[in-house]
Amino acid sequence: MIPEPGRLMAAEINEQPEALGRLLDAEATVAAIAGRVLEARPRFVLLTARGTSDNAALYAKYLVETVLGLPAGLVSPSTFTGYAARPDLHDVLFLAISQSGGSPDLVESTRAARELGALTLAVTNAPSSALAQAAELHLDILAGPEVSVAATKTYSSQLLALWMLVQLLDRASLRAAHAVPDQVAGVLGRPEVDSLVERLVDAQHLITTGRGFSYPTSCEAALKLMETSYLMAQPFSGADLLHGPFAVIQPGTPVLAVVSPGVGGTLIEPVLERLRAAEADLLVVGPGYGDLPLPDDVGEQLSPIVQIAPLQQLALRLAVRRGNDPDRPRGLRKVTETL
Amino acid sequence: MIPEPGRLMAAEINEQPEALGRLLDAEATVAAIAGRVLEARPRFVLLTARGTSDNAALYAKYLVETVLGLPAGLVSPSTFTGYAARPDLHDVLFLAISQSGGSPDLVESTRAARELGALTLAVTNAPSSALAQAAELHLDILAGPEVSVAATKTYSSQLLALWMLVQLLDRASLRAAHAVPDQVAGVLGRPEVDSLVERLVDAQHLITTGRGFSYPTSCEAALKLMETSYLMAQPFSGADLLHGPFAVIQPGTPVLAVVSPGVGGTLIEPVLERLRAAEADLLVVGPGYGDLPLPDDVGEQLSPIVQIAPLQQLALRLAVRRGNDPDRPRGLRKVTETL
Repeated sequence: MIPEPGRLMAAEINEQPEALGRLLDAEATVAAIAGRVLEARPRFVLLTARGTSDNAALYAKYLVETVLGLPAGLVSPSTFTGYAARPDLHDVLFLAISQSGGSPDLVESTRAARELGALTLAVTNAPSSALAQAAELHLDILAGPEVSVAATKTYSSQLLALWMLVQLLDRASLRAAHAVPDQVAGVLGRPEVDSLVERLVDAQHLITTGRGFSYPTSCEAALKLMETSYLMAQPFSGADLLHGPFAVIQPGTPVLAVVSPGVGGTLIEPVLERLRAAEADLLVVGPGYGDLPLPDDVGEQLSPIVQIAPLQQLALRLAVRRGNDPDRPRGLRKVTETL
Repeated sequence: MIPEPGRLMAAEINEQPEALGRLLDAEATVAAIAGRVLEARPRFVLLTARGTSDNAALYAKYLVETVLGLPAGLVSPSTFTGYAARPDLHDVLFLAISQSGGSPDLVESTRAARELGALTLAVTNAPSSALAQAAELHLDILAGPEVSVAATKTYSSQLLALWMLVQLLDRASLRAAHAVPDQVAGVLGRPEVDSLVERLVDAQHLITTGRGFSYPTSCEAALKLMETSYLMAQPFSGADLLHGPFAVIQPGTPVLAVVSPGVGGTLIEPVLERLRAAEADLLVVGPGYGDLPLPDDVGEQLSPIVQIAPLQQLALRLAVRRGNDPDRPRGLRKVTETL
């Protein structure tokens, strides 16, 4: 018997409310890690990751900059592995984010960062992985085994783990997140996802866009669509889209815009106006938008955890609709080993 | 009489050797700025930019990390403008890069960074611009007026200005760059560009890739192709391409790979192998590669200044071949004002 295509991915998408709840219950563990970080008093945060985890790193960068007021940067592992850069990382918190903890370049760059004086913290779903061992501190995202090649529940758990860490570093309460598991469960039944599938069924390419906290969501939606539906999906921050790439938009070009509550939602409005004027085939996802309305009672910082869930479903269902098995995308393995 | 399409862009591409030579002659001015930066002894570098200048910022980030050994990060202007983040930027060098110096978000974020304790340095082609005025220091890239909407000579001059600055901060000689104007002149006559134009004339989309110092080149090539040829061109670092997006590659998918000399060239080899195995329609640009061979006597750090020139010509000629006027791309203005 041939298993149903996307069965694993569908199951893992649906496990998210439970996985997020389990992580919230681990507040004391995250608080202990935050305590160790606070003792080190970092002045600068570097983040490193690949693939889906890189979108979680981008989310964390916005949090670090806006909540903690610390300068932050995403660093390519090749800076350490290929170019053997040896920067002075005294006063630096070095965050390595990976579902599997298995990519050799992340392990090697984390080892290098530790030798160079950084406080290293690995955020993984694999406490016995090489990456978890290489870092001084390890934050387990507790998502449970993830089998489908396309990462889904590990992404939302990475986001929540990073949000919890930043809140606790800011000595703030985690109360706002207690509703998140139910909010995610609530958006998983949206019938509008099937309408979006039909609108994209013959698409050759797609532009995705967001601003601020919804920009990582637009990046992750594009990546999921590429991995599972083989759709050329290109993400842009709304501001960058206007600086050049906007020329590719013609009447009917499909554009998926992710609108967050708050500042990001305000900043993307002029971009949506330009897209409407250019007669793009605009699919808008967010609070109050008809294409895929999302709850308006989620704060902006937590909204990416809720907003990604129906977009994961979109990738899954579009892949199946286009005749692919999203559990076994062509050309990919679960752990990608790059140097 | 209708002017020849792309006349301005063609002229500005051809002015690059002269513009680069003029900038090299300004070593003493750049050295004075480097002296001011050295006095401030920055420990971290933040870079901010949009569009083409953002690709120059990415290049500068690799230089800062690998040559100066300083941690660095690209910061979104919206962190300061939208989210009103107020990080402690004591010990930080804040580099704002912009051709026009006119985008309000860059001006505002530079003002904020200065108030927050950073040493601010604007790198522009417009000494009397608001951005040049807002920053404590200004580095004029001396490219001369740029009229075509697609930035070409200002990009290569930004790269050289940033390379000169980093070398002088490292108290190193600029001698290696003296050959660059002639090397750029040498690659501007490559007949292979026309073969690449014919191979891409009907392409709907393109993936571009590079690693290390050739990654910014692959980003800028993709941006030029989007702006002028309206080709959906999506850049990936070679490592990120293997983490997920590789699934979109099928036999015949066009992929433009930029190979630098040195480490970047070595790191991209396994990516090229995977692309060949997947039967992508591979267009390889770099030393020793038949699709568009580039000189092998340019060091890796300077190679982006030389390698972008024939790719600018590719964008120009493909646009004209596809019936567009690259001097007036649809939907774009020379100065994009984002908030």
